[in-house]
Amino acid sequence: MALMKDEVDIVIPTIRTLDFLESWRPFFQPYHLIIVQDGDPSKTIKVPEGFDYDLYNRDDINRILGPKASCISYKESACRCFGFLISKKKYIFTIDDDCFVAKDPSGKEINAVEQHVRNLITPSTPFFFNTLYDPYREGADFVRGYPFSMRSGVPTAVSHGLWLNIPDYDAPTQLVKPRERSTRYVDAVITIPKGTLYPMCGMNLAFDRELIGPAMYFGLLGDGQPFKRYDDMLAGWLSKVVCDHLGLGVKTGLPYLWHSKASDPFVNLKKEFNGLFWQEELIPFFQSVVLPKECTTAQQCYLELAKLVKENLASIDPYFIRLADAMVTWIEAWDEFNPPKPAAAS
Amino acid sequence: MALMKDEVDIVIPTIRTLDFLESWRPFFQPYHLIIVQDGDPSKTIKVPEGFDYDLYNRDDINRILGPKASCISYKESACRCFGFLISKKKYIFTIDDDCFVAKDPSGKEINAVEQHVRNLITPSTPFFFNTLYDPYREGADFVRGYPFSMRSGVPTAVSHGLWLNIPDYDAPTQLVKPRERSTRYVDAVITIPKGTLYPMCGMNLAFDRELIGPAMYFGLLGDGQPFKRYDDMLAGWLSKVVCDHLGLGVKTGLPYLWHSKASDPFVNLKKEFNGLFWQEELIPFFQSVVLPKECTTAQQCYLELAKLVKENLASIDPYFIRLADAMVTWIEAWDEFNPPKPAAAS
Repeated sequence: MALMKDEVDIVIPTIRTLDFLESWRPFFQPYHLIIVQDGDPSKTIKVPEGFDYDLYNRDDINRILGPKASCISYKESACRCFGFLISKKKYIFTIDDDCFVAKDPSGKEINAVEQHVRNLITPSTPFFFNTLYDPYREGADFVRGYPFSMRSGVPTAVSHGLWLNIPDYDAPTQLVKPRERSTRYVDAVITIPKGTLYPMCGMNLAFDRELIGPAMYFGLLGDGQPFKRYDDMLAGWLSKVVCDHLGLGVKTGLPYLWHSKASDPFVNLKKEFNGLFWQEELIPFFQSVVLPKECTTAQQCYLELAKLVKENLASIDPYFIRLADAMVTWIEAWDEFNPPKPAAAS
Repeated sequence: MALMKDEVDIVIPTIRTLDFLESWRPFFQPYHLIIVQDGDPSKTIKVPEGFDYDLYNRDDINRILGPKASCISYKESACRCFGFLISKKKYIFTIDDDCFVAKDPSGKEINAVEQHVRNLITPSTPFFFNTLYDPYREGADFVRGYPFSMRSGVPTAVSHGLWLNIPDYDAPTQLVKPRERSTRYVDAVITIPKGTLYPMCGMNLAFDRELIGPAMYFGLLGDGQPFKRYDDMLAGWLSKVVCDHLGLGVKTGLPYLWHSKASDPFVNLKKEFNGLFWQEELIPFFQSVVLPKECTTAQQCYLELAKLVKENLASIDPYFIRLADAMVTWIEAWDEFNPPKPAAAS
C-alpha cells in the first residue's frame, strides 16, 4: 500500500502545535500532509521534524483563492476542505488533531491510511445488503441469495472510519453520559445502502477526490454563521445524495483511531443549538431529494443541490441562501483548481 | 431473559435424530420446541430426553390443516413455517439441526435465544444509519447528527443471526471456495435500512409472530416444485417489504452459532439452478414493489403481494401462479389458527 503514496494527501485542520503527529509517524511519514491552520494566521503552528507538508493559514487561503475564499469557513474545522480543493492527489484522508493511533484487539497498531485506501480501492455494494459484511475482504464473500449481477459492485467514493475511546456524541448526549467510552472494536466494513443517509463525521474520513471531491464541501459554518459543528454532517448528507445519484459507494466501519478527548459539552451545546432543530427538517429534505438525470458529474449534482437548498431551505432561515451561494462559489473554485483532464489522444 | 420462556417457541425442521440438541441443552431446555419432521412420516425422529417438545410429521400437518396443508412444502426446510403457524407464542426462534452453540472471542458459549430476544425487544432504526451500530446496546448510543425525532426507533420484527465455521454460500461459491470458513466474529447488531433488501437465511432466525408472522411464509418449494433452496430468501424479501411498509424493523448480526457442515454443492447446484436465474428478476421486482396505504396489517400486505406475484411473475414461469395461490392459502390457514385477539373491554 505504501506504493499509493503518490496518490494520497493527508489533510489536517488545526489551531495548535501538531504533537499528535508523533503517534502517526510510521504511518504518515510516507505521505504528503496538507495542514490547514484555522483561526489567527499570525500564530505559529509547530510541526514535528521529518514530515513532508505544506501549511496554509487564513492569509494563504485568501491569497490563493482571492474573492472565492469567502466559501471557506473560519473558526470551524470545515476549513479543511480548502485542503481537498488544492490537493492534486486521487485520495484524501482527513483527520482531527486530537486523534491518535488505535490498537486492534490483538494489540497491533492500526494503520488507518492503509485501511482507508483498501476500502476505497475495493468496490461497494449499495443495492443489496450482504449479511457477512464486506464481501471483498479476505475470507469473506457474497452469501447465498446475493444476485450475481450485483457482485461486481460499484466504485467506492467515501470511507468513513470510527473512533475508540471518546465517541462522537452531540452535546446533549455528552451531558447525559459524560463517562461513556467507545470500547467495542467491531471488525467490519459495511456499505451504507443506496437511499440511506448517515451521520458522516470528519474526524477519520477518506474519499476519492476524482469521484466525489466537488461534493465534499464542508459548508460555510463557524465564525459569523448561525450553523456550527454540522460541517461534516452537511458534507455527509450531500455527498451521500450525490453518490446515490451517480452510482458510487460509501463505506463505514474500519479503521478505528483513538479519539483522545471530548470537547466541552457546554461550548458544543451553544454551537450546535440551531443545528439540533434544523437537522429535523434538513435530513428529511435531503432524504427526499431527487436529482435530474441530466446531472452526470459531481459538480452538476452539487450545483443542482445548491439550487434546491436556496429554493427549499430559506424558509427555515435566511442563512441557507448564504450557504447556497457559498456552495456555488465552492464549485467555481473547485473547477478553477481542478480543470478537467485532457482526454487521451485517440 | 429466562422469564421470556412463556413467550418463545423454538422451531426445528428436521429429517434426522436430533443429537444436536445436546449442544443446546442449557439454552433450549427452558423453552418449548416445535419439531417439524420433513420427509417420510413413518420414520421415527429421536429427541434427547428432558426437552419439552411437540413433533409434527407430514401426516400430522395434513390432519391438522386439512386441504390447506397444500401450502406447506414437502422435502424442503420451508416446512418449518408450519411451526410458525401453530405456535401460540409471541416470539419464534428457528434453527437448523446442523447448527451448534458457538463461542464468543472470550471463549464463552453464546446463548443465541437470549441475544435474539434482546434484539427483538429493543427497537430498530431503519430511517437513518447509526455508525456506532446498535444504539440501544449497553455502552453505545446515537452519534452526533442523529435526529432526535428518530431516536425512539420502531418495533423490531425480525432478528437475523449469523454463522461461524461454514458460511451460508450458494452452490457456485461453494464450488469455487470449498475451504473457505467464516472465522470472524463481528460484534455488532445492525438495523437493515428501510428500502434495502437482504438475503435472509433460515438457519438462525427469530421474529415477532404478532408483528410479522403472517409474512414469514417460506413458500411452496421443494418436492415437485421448480424452486428449491430459496424458501428463506423468498420469506426474507417479502417480510422485509412488509416490515418497510408497516414501519417495522429488521436487524442482522449477533448472535452467531456454529454451522457444522456444508451441504453437497453438486446437489445444491441442481436445487438452486432455477433460482440463480430467477433471483435476478425477483429481487429488482420486490425492490420496486409499493404496497397501497390501505394495507395496514401483515395479512393485508401479504395478500396484496400474492396478487402482485401472480400478475407480475407468471411471465417468468407458471410456477409463480401456484406460489401466489399457496400464499393466499397460507394467510387463510394463518387466520384460522390465529384469530384476532378480542379487544380489551373498555
